[in-house]
Formats: sequence, structure tokens, C-alpha cells
Amino acid sequence: MERVCIVGAGVIGSLFAGHLAHVCDVSVLTRRKEHADALNREGLRVSGKSERHARVSASADPEGLSPFDVAIVATKASGLEPAAAALEGRFSEATVMTVLNGIGAEEVVRAHGDWSIVSGVTFMSGTRHSDTHVEYILDTETWLGPYEDTPFETVRDIADTIAASGLKAEALPDLRPAQWSKLIFNAAVNPVAALTGLPHDPHFAQEVDPTNLGHLVHGLVDEGKAVATAAGIDLHDDPWEMNVLATQRGSAHYPSMLEDVDAHRQTEIELITGSIVREAVRRDVSVPLHAMLYGLVKGKEASW
Amino acid sequence: MERVCIVGAGVIGSLFAGHLAHVCDVSVLTRRKEHADALNREGLRVSGKSERHARVSASADPEGLSPFDVAIVATKASGLEPAAAALEGRFSEATVMTVLNGIGAEEVVRAHGDWSIVSGVTFMSGTRHSDTHVEYILDTETWLGPYEDTPFETVRDIADTIAASGLKAEALPDLRPAQWSKLIFNAAVNPVAALTGLPHDPHFAQEVDPTNLGHLVHGLVDEGKAVATAAGIDLHDDPWEMNVLATQRGSAHYPSMLEDVDAHRQTEIELITGSIVREAVRRDVSVPLHAMLYGLVKGKEASW
Repeated sequence: MERVCIVGAGVIGSLFAGHLAHVCDVSVLTRRKEHADALNREGLRVSGKSERHARVSASADPEGLSPFDVAIVATKASGLEPAAAALEGRFSEATVMTVLNGIGAEEVVRAHGDWSIVSGVTFMSGTRHSDTHVEYILDTETWLGPYEDTPFETVRDIADTIAASGLKAEALPDLRPAQWSKLIFNAAVNPVAALTGLPHDPHFAQEVDPTNLGHLVHGLVDEGKAVATAAGIDLHDDPWEMNVLATQRGSAHYPSMLEDVDAHRQTEIELITGSIVREAVRRDVSVPLHAMLYGLVKGKEASW
Repeated sequence: MERVCIVGAGVIGSLFAGHLAHVCDVSVLTRRKEHADALNREGLRVSGKSERHARVSASADPEGLSPFDVAIVATKASGLEPAAAALEGRFSEATVMTVLNGIGAEEVVRAHGDWSIVSGVTFMSGTRHSDTHVEYILDTETWLGPYEDTPFETVRDIADTIAASGLKAEALPDLRPAQWSKLIFNAAVNPVAALTGLPHDPHFAQEVDPTNLGHLVHGLVDEGKAVATAAGIDLHDDPWEMNVLATQRGSAHYPSMLEDVDAHRQTEIELITGSIVREAVRRDVSVPLHAMLYGLVKGKEASW
């Protein structure tokens, strides 16, 4: 793993690029040409939990990409399909790792090529200050696992390189328990934040009065767990405990789905809540609360 | 019914005051002193479906109220308790009629006095242009019924006077079937509008794709009907049909709960969804969708 291509230079992509550039050659595929130009001109700065200033070779045109051994796809849900299409036909020996919210990103990538695929889920967070400056806020782990018949050795190599770059990473023989824990957590928290306007604060864990939001979040978690059980997944972490712990940290996280709503952008509801609803239909599990949030967030998107 | 006091001069109160002033003496109890001053100075103008210019005697101080035979309480939910408290100890021979959204306003009034009480539900709508000008938009009916042992004769007298003033009114021996129809309709539409930002438009009746909002609204209506059935109420109109019909009118209604959310004002969620949730608990009926909307709108209020 000497050449890494980061596909999508939002917060997560930039954190990978800024760190990995100190142990590998890093290229970045951006959506906007100005973004690529700025990165080529100024490099990429990471502040916060790490201080880095990385040289990267960026392009908005997939024709301009240098060969790579590993691509890390870190787009938003809405950017996944075009990103996978941009990689189609290129560097078939490479491994493609996905680190999107929700589940199902691997299938979208697979539809565009025969690469080895590694599933990823990250708990890092940060704030984007500009095209060339990202602040590293939560220095939590990224977990990786094999997708289909990708050898575990490949997964471990990537995890080792990520760890060598200064980020936290762990290779797991089966990522689905962790992916599902995070999926259920995100599906219980993000749409509720998006609809109420609340950041992920202690309201989400409060269950004192009957109207407290914690009941709803708990109900969503219980529905999600029922779907995971029906799908044969033994969760890695309990999503309700993840929720309680996260609301006890000092500053409330501002979920990206709430940012999307504030900016009247398409949200990640399809990959998050949509994944749970579709799996529930497949497994014949009743998820009225998720179905409701799905409809409400879709309705909100329709109001713009 | 020669002297009527309108308590709360929002859209509905102003429509009653502007029309009734042509057949009765009308006094108005406002929340703000400037509002009372403006009404005393300029009178009250109604445009739209009716054209009226009424002289009214207004006061923001209940001590300044002239005696009345009938008080029509047309405040928002948040203004009900102070309005009932302002009437306490006054004109015990009078009849008090409530025309708030939701159910339960009569109990709040009863806690402040022994007046005969008449229950009302109105389908009128309008737009408030200023403290002294309201536009009459939907000239639909107001329905009245006895509360506790109020004689039906009293109800009919008030309905006749309202009709004589140029508004549409009907006295019903039992208002609860109509109140519950409107309650279920409002509980299915208003919070969904408040959370999505959509006015009451055709999205609310659409049930083509699984993500369409109509499924959610339909699910809410079904929960509401189950509560009504458990409470022994035989609905006057089917709330789903009310929803479909309303979305087929030319211009989409902008529900007051969405206006409240836009203005970061406390909403009527307690009297509307709260009434259904409380009745469901009492009757041991499961209403997960209503409980969820209740929590979400409460969360939204908490985010301000």
C-alpha cells in the first residue's frame, strides 16, 4: 500500500488524506475543480487532535488520476454513485475501501468493477474550515473488514498503514456487527436531529417524562436491533449505549444530516434509514418508527 | 345572546368579532394593550369572503370588560389557561364557548368557573393582515355542541346568532364525533407539516411509492381512529377523506403549527397530539406514530 487515492475530500476524506500523505503517496479525487486546484497549490492542513501539513496530488477529473493500490471512498451518500462510476475500468488490481455512513456502499462500488473491496466504518469526526483545512475533533477509531472474498491480510495491511499514519484503525474479521451498530445508532440519532434541529445533546438520552425524546430514540434503537437480529447480525456495540455515551461528552455533535437540512441539501436518509427499512421489508420485521422518519425526512427534502 | 365577549383576537376570534358585531354588542379581550387600543380606535375590518367593518369595544384588562351573555374563547392553546383565569369570578350567568384546536379546552375553562360551557370546533380559516384587519378565506362551518349538562337550547341559540351574523354554524346534540374527526385530522397533518416544512399539499395524500408521506399520514389517521373507537366515539367524518379533500383544493393551507415553528413559538402539540396520546394511554391503545411526533415536536421546541 504505497499509493492511496482518496475519493471525496470532505471531512473524513481530508482526515485520511492529511494523515496518510506522511506514509504513502496520496492522490485525491475531488468533485470540484477549484477544490483540486487549491489542494495542489496549498496542500492540505490538519489541525486539532493532530497537526499536519500534507502535499497531495489532486484532480477533479478521473482521467488525471495516478495509479493507486488502494482507493478510500469517503464521499457522502449522494456522491457515491458518481464516484464509483469515475473509478470504473481503472486500476483493477487495486483495493477499494468504503467508509460511508449507512450500509450498502460496497454493492454500489461492486456494480462498477471487480476490485477487492474492504468495508469500513469510521467514528472519527472533524470540522471542515476550508477546501484545504480540516480540524480533527474526535480521534476515535476506524474499523475495517473484508467484503465478499477479500483476504483478511489485505484488510490488516490497510489498517496497519492507517494506524502508522497517526489515525486509529482496527481490522475485524467481520465488520457487519460494527457496521450495524453504527447504522442503528445513526438511524436513531441523525433523522431525529434533522427533524428537530437539536444537535446530538442530552435530550436524545432523556427518558424521564413520557414526552422526552429518549423514548423515541430508544424505540428506534429497538426496531433497529430487531432488524439486525432477523438478519443474523450479533451487534458489536449496543447502539443505545453508544447514544448515551455520546450525549455525555462535553460538546454536542452536530450531525451531518442536520447540516444537510440547514443547507437544504439532499440528506443521507437513503443509506441510513432507507437501509434499515429495506432490510426490514426483506426480513418481514415491522419498523413503523423508521418508516415514519423516512417519510418525514423525504417530505422535508420535498419542501425545498 | 345580546352581548358577546370574544376572548383572543387571532384569526378565528377576529372573524367571530367582525361578523357578530353586526347582530350583537361585541367586546374583545386581547392579550396586548396596543391591540385593544387599535381595535377601539379603528374598529375591525373583515375582507375576503365577507366585507365587514365592525365597531368593537376592546380591552386587554379583564377588569375593563363589560358584562356579556356569551364568551367565545378563541385563543391559541398557549393562551387558554391565562384566558380562563382572566374570566374567573366574572359573569357567572354567562355561557362560555370554546373553539380551540384539539380537545380538552372545556376542562381548562371549567377549572376556573361554573359557567355553562358550549364546545365548538371551527373549520373556518383566514389570514391576519394586521391587528384590525383579517381576511376571511375558507367560509366553512363552525359546529357547536353541549358540554356536560348545558341545555341544547343554549347551543342552538348561539348557533342561530352566529348564522345570523353571516358565518356558517350548526348545533349538534353531541359534538364529540366532529371534534374527534377534526382532532385526528389535525394530529395527522399539523405535526407533519411542522416537521417537514411542507404546507398541507398533495404530498400528504400520496401513497404511490413506499416513501410517500401519505402512508405516514394514513398510519396516523388509523391510530387516531383506533383511539376514538376505544373511547366510544363514532366519528362524524373520516379524517383520511378530510385530508384527501383538503389537499385537492387549489391552494395549500399553511397549518398554524408550521407558522409556529417558523416563528419559534410554542406549538399546539399538547392540545392536539398530546390529547390523542393521553387518551390512548387511558384506553390502553398503542399509538407509536403519535408518540413519535409528540417527541419530535417537543424536541423542536427545545431546540430554540
